[in-house]
Amino acid sequence: MQTQIFLSELMGTAMLIILGCGVVANVALVKTKGNNGGFLMVNFGWGLAVFAGVYVAFASGAHLNPAVTLGLLAGGQDMFGGNEELGLGVVPGTIGNAFLYIVAQLVGAFIGAVICWLAYKKHFDEEQDPGAKLGVFSTGPAIRSYSWNLVTEIIATFVLVFVVILFGRTPSGLGPLAVALLVVGIGASLGGPTGYAINPARDLGPRIAHAVLPIPGKGSSDWSYSWVPVVGPIVGGVIAGLVATATQGALGL
Amino acid sequence: MQTQIFLSELMGTAMLIILGCGVVANVALVKTKGNNGGFLMVNFGWGLAVFAGVYVAFASGAHLNPAVTLGLLAGGQDMFGGNEELGLGVVPGTIGNAFLYIVAQLVGAFIGAVICWLAYKKHFDEEQDPGAKLGVFSTGPAIRSYSWNLVTEIIATFVLVFVVILFGRTPSGLGPLAVALLVVGIGASLGGPTGYAINPARDLGPRIAHAVLPIPGKGSSDWSYSWVPVVGPIVGGVIAGLVATATQGALGL
Amino acid sequence: MQTQIFLSELMGTAMLIILGCGVVANVALVKTKGNNGGFLMVNFGWGLAVFAGVYVAFASGAHLNPAVTLGLLAGGQDMFGGNEELGLGVVPGTIGNAFLYIVAQLVGAFIGAVICWLAYKKHFDEEQDPGAKLGVFSTGPAIRSYSWNLVTEIIATFVLVFVVILFGRTPSGLGPLAVALLVVGIGASLGGPTGYAINPARDLGPRIAHAVLPIPGKGSSDWSYSWVPVVGPIVGGVIAGLVATATQGALGL
Amino acid sequence: MQTQIFLSELMGTAMLIILGCGVVANVALVKTKGNNGGFLMVNFGWGLAVFAGVYVAFASGAHLNPAVTLGLLAGGQDMFGGNEELGLGVVPGTIGNAFLYIVAQLVGAFIGAVICWLAYKKHFDEEQDPGAKLGVFSTGPAIRSYSWNLVTEIIATFVLVFVVILFGRTPSGLGPLAVALLVVGIGASLGGPTGYAINPARDLGPRIAHAVLPIPGKGSSDWSYSWVPVVGPIVGGVIAGLVATATQGALGL
Repeated sequence: MQTQIFLSELMGTAMLIILGCGVVANVALVKTKGNNGGFLMVNFGWGLAVFAGVYVAFASGAHLNPAVTLGLLAGGQDMFGGNEELGLGVVPGTIGNAFLYIVAQLVGAFIGAVICWLAYKKHFDEEQDPGAKLGVFSTGPAIRSYSWNLVTEIIATFVLVFVVILFGRTPSGLGPLAVALLVVGIGASLGGPTGYAINPARDLGPRIAHAVLPIPGKGSSDWSYSWVPVVGPIVGGVIAGLVATATQGALGL
Repeated sequence: MQTQIFLSELMGTAMLIILGCGVVANVALVKTKGNNGGFLMVNFGWGLAVFAGVYVAFASGAHLNPAVTLGLLAGGQDMFGGNEELGLGVVPGTIGNAFLYIVAQLVGAFIGAVICWLAYKKHFDEEQDPGAKLGVFSTGPAIRSYSWNLVTEIIATFVLVFVVILFGRTPSGLGPLAVALLVVGIGASLGGPTGYAINPARDLGPRIAHAVLPIPGKGSSDWSYSWVPVVGPIVGGVIAGLVATATQGALGL
Repeated sequence: MQTQIFLSELMGTAMLIILGCGVVANVALVKTKGNNGGFLMVNFGWGLAVFAGVYVAFASGAHLNPAVTLGLLAGGQDMFGGNEELGLGVVPGTIGNAFLYIVAQLVGAFIGAVICWLAYKKHFDEEQDPGAKLGVFSTGPAIRSYSWNLVTEIIATFVLVFVVILFGRTPSGLGPLAVALLVVGIGASLGGPTGYAINPARDLGPRIAHAVLPIPGKGSSDWSYSWVPVVGPIVGGVIAGLVATATQGALGL
Repeated sequence: MQTQIFLSELMGTAMLIILGCGVVANVALVKTKGNNGGFLMVNFGWGLAVFAGVYVAFASGAHLNPAVTLGLLAGGQDMFGGNEELGLGVVPGTIGNAFLYIVAQLVGAFIGAVICWLAYKKHFDEEQDPGAKLGVFSTGPAIRSYSWNLVTEIIATFVLVFVVILFGRTPSGLGPLAVALLVVGIGASLGGPTGYAINPARDLGPRIAHAVLPIPGKGSSDWSYSWVPVVGPIVGGVIAGLVATATQGALGL
């Protein structure tokens, strides 16, 4: 089962990042067909990237995000409830399993970023602005303020992980589409200050790719900011897991 | 059960306002990533804010809106039909319950507005236009005319409450998504003149937050207009509840 | 049953036109919040107008459109297949029933246009361009050419009615959402030359409202073009009904 | 059964191309109502074109795309799993059947392009830019580089075919909507460099139509590039089919 979890989360997160970083490349890099396509296009692109990634990683519960994994762990919940129809078993919420999920997510995010770079290779080559290149891989703040940027990432990730846990407790019948739409909404609503990492793997994996890939004129990988989109989402996800468990009785869900 | 209803509506409405006011902040405040993202982005942001809020407040029927509560009360309907799958009981349509829902919605809307302000703190600080700051919290008319602004809010809220009641009578299977899409549509179609409050709590709660929060250079909270997005939605919601009950036989639903 | 059909189609079509004409008003009229919101916003607005209208007219099969009614009649199909869950009976495809549907649709469209005008009253008053005012009510060609405009309306309505009939033959499970999304797609794809009436009631009812309402400086109702968005959709709908019936065996649907 | 498959894929692909090429015409050609509507509108237009086409070709499994057909063939899978509810049988994955699908798709794409041209006839006549006219029919690279353009098409088509195969293995319940949203996402995310053909029939059929139709001032059909959107999608689709089969056990799907 561990191989299955590892491969599932790795491939799902790679799919998430191919499409997610892809839409930023399309909007931000020079000469693309979607250049200046607007923030709503970015929101839909990331939401549908989650949509595709969730189908790929269906067998492991499709966390694709250490904040989700750690939120479930903190709330004392299973990593995956299993699926009778497919014969997929329950994955218990242990520290060992959480570690396995997170390593797979980071490796997958790195691989996804490399594939996205290949898909937009010529546009990276012709782009002159190093900031636009880094922006395809990783998030950065609109107004740099580590403490307030952290607050934004905590709030946005709390919303993500809290509502995702509630999806599992309500008879919605929408599955992956519900998560996709939630991510569209969080991006549109809370993505303004920091570009909504809301996922440590989504930010750190591609940032490492940016650092090691041979991109001409790529500039700094902005490591001084890199801890914010890691720590913020983890804090927000853990709080969400705890609150979801604590309010389970009170909310009736 | 009263605690559950109170917490459910409070947290659901807070979620609605975090994301709903958030998308306006993203589009309207200076230096955000979604600046000038367009009205359709605002429509999707509010629609998906409803989507998230409905999941949070699933256990109380997710009114999130005094116009819905009073519409159901006026139509002589239950506040919530219950959910067999989750063991959630029926909430009868009494005045006491309506009062409980509305107080919870107002408190939740206030809290949501405070959290939205924290998420966009630095952008509020750097924004120079007091009107843009107030616009994140509360609606205002494009052309000020209390009587016609009232007409617009009555019509738009009638559409909301009437169709939401019909959702419950038809085998749609979409649940929260249907309400979310309806709100996207109402915003796009009837949001032009007044910014579609269509919800007294959505407008009044954040307006109180605007009045009490220490926002630098925030300007007036425009209390002279504040009654329109309270009275209009209540009138529209009550008419919708009455019409929905009166046409139940005639429409076959 | 005839009263139910009449009221159902009337109210559903009124809902369609309130929201449909509303989004054009929001995008086209001066000083609205959605001014210049773009064609995709218009497409979503009309699609979600259909979404709301279909729920209102659920009991009669929600044609909301004489082209659908006449397409079903031409194809020898029932007006409505009935709904076991709600106890709604089958509505046979007779000429009398078709007449009933179409009259209700026209009256509903007229009423919807009046309500839309009330919602945007101040913006109609301040708008200087008579063409923008008429454009809220009725469609007009981008390049005037009666024959080619007719071709466009025939093709677009064929797509609408043909695919709507197929929805009923496939296990989609989406119901009203499927029709809404189809209308978004037809608008985006085939709305460029004529503004996609694809519905005689949608165009003629509001055009009559435009002619009789006391709108200051409203200009001509462009009756010389008015037959195109009536004849084109009827021809397209009838062809679709015939083709859908003729290919039923060949397509396996 | 062969007639049914042929007609089903032909009509479904024609529907895909009418709406798909239509949205490009609306955004790109002079004087249309959707002129300059943005790349997100193109993405939604193509996604909803797939949505409509899948319903039309439901009986044959709705490949509408040789890359899907060849991906299933390479992966040793059925062309269509059948549908008990409709009494549609299984279509085995043979070379003969694959040939039948592909010919039908090409003929359908050609016919769809002709119908799209008729719908936008006057706008083709008034458009001065030959590039805009060709762009309605076929894709072209943003930065011409056969090898990198090929890489982009391979990656994007891999995503399409791989995730579509996974849709069939997971209990999503969304059917045609899932494929439509996936195509919206691929367009937004990976459409920047080449305009996402991701379908040999979608590109080659309309290109042939462009070559033979009497379009005034139409310019070159750019045959030197035409092999890229044929070879790239075939390679991507075949890899996806092989990977989907190889990882079936490992992914648990």
